[in-house]
Amino acid sequence: MSSGKLNEQAKGVYIIAATPFTDEGAVDLQSVDTLTDFYLGCGVHGFTLLGMMGEAHKLTADESISVVNRVIGRAQGRQVIVGVSHAGLENVRRLSHEAMMAGAAGVMVAPPPGLKGDEGLYNYYAQVFAALGPHIPVVYQDYPQTTGVYLPVNVFERLVDDFPQLVMLKHEDAPGLAKLTKVREGEKKPGRRRVSILVGNGGLYYPQEMRRGADGAMTGFAWPEMLVQVYELFAKGKPEEAEDLFDIFLPLVRHEVQPAIGLALRKEVLFRRGAIKSPKQRAPGSSLTATDKTELDGMIARLERRLAATGRLAKAAE
Amino acid sequence: MSSGKLNEQAKGVYIIAATPFTDEGAVDLQSVDTLTDFYLGCGVHGFTLLGMMGEAHKLTADESISVVNRVIGRAQGRQVIVGVSHAGLENVRRLSHEAMMAGAAGVMVAPPPGLKGDEGLYNYYAQVFAALGPHIPVVYQDYPQTTGVYLPVNVFERLVDDFPQLVMLKHEDAPGLAKLTKVREGEKKPGRRRVSILVGNGGLYYPQEMRRGADGAMTGFAWPEMLVQVYELFAKGKPEEAEDLFDIFLPLVRHEVQPAIGLALRKEVLFRRGAIKSPKQRAPGSSLTATDKTELDGMIARLERRLAATGRLAKAAE
Amino acid sequence: MSSGKLNEQAKGVYIIAATPFTDEGAVDLQSVDTLTDFYLGCGVHGFTLLGMMGEAHKLTADESISVVNRVIGRAQGRQVIVGVSHAGLENVRRLSHEAMMAGAAGVMVAPPPGLKGDEGLYNYYAQVFAALGPHIPVVYQDYPQTTGVYLPVNVFERLVDDFPQLVMLKHEDAPGLAKLTKVREGEKKPGRRRVSILVGNGGLYYPQEMRRGADGAMTGFAWPEMLVQVYELFAKGKPEEAEDLFDIFLPLVRHEVQPAIGLALRKEVLFRRGAIKSPKQRAPGSSLTATDKTELDGMIARLERRLAATGRLAKAAE
Amino acid sequence: MSSGKLNEQAKGVYIIAATPFTDEGAVDLQSVDTLTDFYLGCGVHGFTLLGMMGEAHKLTADESISVVNRVIGRAQGRQVIVGVSHAGLENVRRLSHEAMMAGAAGVMVAPPPGLKGDEGLYNYYAQVFAALGPHIPVVYQDYPQTTGVYLPVNVFERLVDDFPQLVMLKHEDAPGLAKLTKVREGEKKPGRRRVSILVGNGGLYYPQEMRRGADGAMTGFAWPEMLVQVYELFAKGKPEEAEDLFDIFLPLVRHEVQPAIGLALRKEVLFRRGAIKSPKQRAPGSSLTATDKTELDGMIARLERRLAATGRLAKAAE
Repeated sequence: MSSGKLNEQAKGVYIIAATPFTDEGAVDLQSVDTLTDFYLGCGVHGFTLLGMMGEAHKLTADESISVVNRVIGRAQGRQVIVGVSHAGLENVRRLSHEAMMAGAAGVMVAPPPGLKGDEGLYNYYAQVFAALGPHIPVVYQDYPQTTGVYLPVNVFERLVDDFPQLVMLKHEDAPGLAKLTKVREGEKKPGRRRVSILVGNGGLYYPQEMRRGADGAMTGFAWPEMLVQVYELFAKGKPEEAEDLFDIFLPLVRHEVQPAIGLALRKEVLFRRGAIKSPKQRAPGSSLTATDKTELDGMIARLERRLAATGRLAKAAE
Repeated sequence: MSSGKLNEQAKGVYIIAATPFTDEGAVDLQSVDTLTDFYLGCGVHGFTLLGMMGEAHKLTADESISVVNRVIGRAQGRQVIVGVSHAGLENVRRLSHEAMMAGAAGVMVAPPPGLKGDEGLYNYYAQVFAALGPHIPVVYQDYPQTTGVYLPVNVFERLVDDFPQLVMLKHEDAPGLAKLTKVREGEKKPGRRRVSILVGNGGLYYPQEMRRGADGAMTGFAWPEMLVQVYELFAKGKPEEAEDLFDIFLPLVRHEVQPAIGLALRKEVLFRRGAIKSPKQRAPGSSLTATDKTELDGMIARLERRLAATGRLAKAAE
Repeated sequence: MSSGKLNEQAKGVYIIAATPFTDEGAVDLQSVDTLTDFYLGCGVHGFTLLGMMGEAHKLTADESISVVNRVIGRAQGRQVIVGVSHAGLENVRRLSHEAMMAGAAGVMVAPPPGLKGDEGLYNYYAQVFAALGPHIPVVYQDYPQTTGVYLPVNVFERLVDDFPQLVMLKHEDAPGLAKLTKVREGEKKPGRRRVSILVGNGGLYYPQEMRRGADGAMTGFAWPEMLVQVYELFAKGKPEEAEDLFDIFLPLVRHEVQPAIGLALRKEVLFRRGAIKSPKQRAPGSSLTATDKTELDGMIARLERRLAATGRLAKAAE
Repeated sequence: MSSGKLNEQAKGVYIIAATPFTDEGAVDLQSVDTLTDFYLGCGVHGFTLLGMMGEAHKLTADESISVVNRVIGRAQGRQVIVGVSHAGLENVRRLSHEAMMAGAAGVMVAPPPGLKGDEGLYNYYAQVFAALGPHIPVVYQDYPQTTGVYLPVNVFERLVDDFPQLVMLKHEDAPGLAKLTKVREGEKKPGRRRVSILVGNGGLYYPQEMRRGADGAMTGFAWPEMLVQVYELFAKGKPEEAEDLFDIFLPLVRHEVQPAIGLALRKEVLFRRGAIKSPKQRAPGSSLTATDKTELDGMIARLERRLAATGRLAKAAE
């Protein structure tokens, strides 16, 4: 099933999918199905697989491609972006071709740690684009908190000018609001393409980013329907309503961005919501204490009360 | 004016004070006065000076002590804790004695980068306690995101058991909720002292931390009256009300925790609220763009609307 | 061909093998053969494959196992240790079993970045040993410069006491001489096993480490015959002669330990010495400028003059 | 006593001076005198004070300036460079003015951690030069292993082109040989100034760097007479003799570059050579075990035997 290739017009919510495992630690392909259905039910516009939050680094090559195939087969034509970051360029190339053959819409590449200087960064991506060829759409994942590689706006602009296959910025620098604005302002220069910008960082600054020109979100918050509705309210020109809705979920957005424990919280919520059969992470992974779970109970109860009070989204939070 | 020494019973809000500068970059002692008055007007229970957010590393030794003296002289008997972290132990000792001579209630010490292993960490603090002697109360600042030094609970417990002058944990590990719970559970062991725990991280998880046994906050949020009222509501046994109030401010709490730009936002709010004469940071520092300021306008307008809707705190946010 | 399993008696030089590629970047299995023969000709006592210097992170899973098989098939019964460090425990388990099935003598595991505290480190290895079972000999690779994880001696000792399958320490902390001595002194405690210690860090402190109780070297210096002869001179009780020989090569040992460029230098020497058909690294990799090569010419000429002057090893350096 | 200001013609050995303390940890000004005399006796061409190896970060402001004054007063007209790196620009300015008032020839500035991108780096130094004004000669300390800030050659060239007061590169990137060559090649461009380059990294690659165009060394090796003689042999056009001499000392050069323990070794040698009254470092500092000292005995004995065999420098090593 073809969903077309990713391009600069991409917008909406590309959910970063968790990877479900059985309690014994095997990839749970049935839960991949139910999770995909769950995301579709939340109205997501696309998927991002094998990102940093997807425990991709704990999968074998075979497992990775089987997850990609499974989601693409069930995604009802939604675009699927596949993370292909790797220490070796040959592996980036190979993974990208495998993903595109499986029907992916594009690939996402973060810079490897250790790149030096603006030229070092530009040259790395130039190598990547040369290796992939002109026909594979690429997302630049800008996540320096993990990679240690800072992306200056002028380097990003040079890459956009020189490589038409670079169609999206996954924006999650911190602080990054000023960078987002600078990219959008730079695009007003005659001849420069406007690329798609989807935002990450768990969605912590989602309304601010939308107001500054983001096209949507690419993150893994466990109530994706909020991400979708906020996007849609912005699309309808209702930013204040969008932010009102977002703020109701903000305590949980913030709770999920905790390093290390965040994924455990997300999987626990997905489990409680029936999307996956087990909240298990592959070892070594984090897990929740009884106190953590009681705390989560309380936070969800607060969320539900507030949603009920506004009359919005009450069912979705069940 | 004596405020007594810091001890394990410390609780409430110890505000991390910004250091005000003139537009030319000089320490602005008149603004130190007005800022101190502002904090007192917000109801803070104590002060923490020369912390990481106080631009202490950009002050000369003389400037540092003049700020300490100025605040202590105006603090109406509230306790003042002074940050004395330094690469050299002799300087930790010297700064501590200067601070205590000036009337400080205690000192705060973060571990220097590069300590290795549990023993390396224990031994460093053992050296600090030996250098300071038994009469200077010490706060352990647990902020591994900046220091790179992780504090295991069992090392903290050994320090508490061995050094009675260790009276407080400044808790800002991330994720840190489980650690806080573990410290509190460990204190149930017969013979172990219960220490004071004040929380940092910009207050991002303040209600969760209070529910887990924190005694208050030590952070620099620009609406300290919220920190105080949340504390008081918890003290009155009203955690849900406390969290309701907190959640109204959460969008701004989150906005201020942005790395690098956070301090610029805080100083801008303190400036707007009349607490300081200039939002200027000492170079090299961050500053706000016109877009950043318009965004802040909007966020404050949203805050005020929501406070007005609840009828709470409306005046304090002016 | 069985070479037996690795145990605490292992000694000598376990060369860290480079991975040869064709100029086009494919794994060059014929050069794997000639390189293996070259190492055997230098008298190495064993091999270590897929270490950090072996560009293992740029190989596919299939390529990795094909290199392991090829070397084991040609190693004339010398023991082969295979690096199996991986972010996911399941992959550590899987790679270990594949390696042992292929005839490896043992596996080498470095801690993943991000482990916290002594307990976090102990628990990680406890999980590894549980996953591998009691029958796979394990080498602890202690290389904190890359992993960021410091190994305290008492944690290593607890692991040795609790897990008989931990048989070797790959020692390359920096500074690490005192640690080596401390491990050896700790082993005098009744009941503690004496493990094998092979040293890395490019061999930069090899004689000092041998004098302190190391059992040999595990590194990739491009004149392995020096590593072997130094080992043998120590074995014969001639430390001063050993160090005299080492010092002749020290300028090149030091030259090869340069970060980033070191591997390019090693592969260039192996290429010049006829051990591999191309000095090519897989992208992204470092390469030598014309100036670098001229400089290397000069350094090798100096080495040969000095070897000729002593009458030693003259042929081996050809 | 005026030694003139530092300029692009600076060459030779600018020794990085240790800071001597008494066994009780006080600055030992008498040892500052004897150490200065010792360095002068070794023939050094200049001094660098308050560098990273000088425990500058453990001194108070008053102690720092007293050491600077003491050395300048006794340096017999040799140029003195003072390290003034500081988190706050105002402190960089203040320290620089104090140093120049005391008679320093110039100041050395390393970038603060956290600068982002080529522009961030350029802008920081532009701020520094603006703050210092055109009359204070500046050395760029390029030591990314500690600062985390990489200096691209083109950024350095822009700084050289735009700020005439930038007269020297303290070269200690790793690997850095190719960078040194690139700077020298770039200087052939019409209109670009040739700056002085002195090399650090403990001198580990000193002959290679001299062959590539360095003007001398700025490091703290405990046998400075070797650094001086190697410089002079290069100046006389005898690079092979220079490197022969260097290689005799290389085992100890390498021994001293060990992180953490290196300074303890240096101070021990300076103490043994009578240059300072105590090898004490200020806490927290490293110290030598009995094994470390015995090892050092052996290494010095080897050095002396080899020097005796060549008839060179025998007295200097006493």
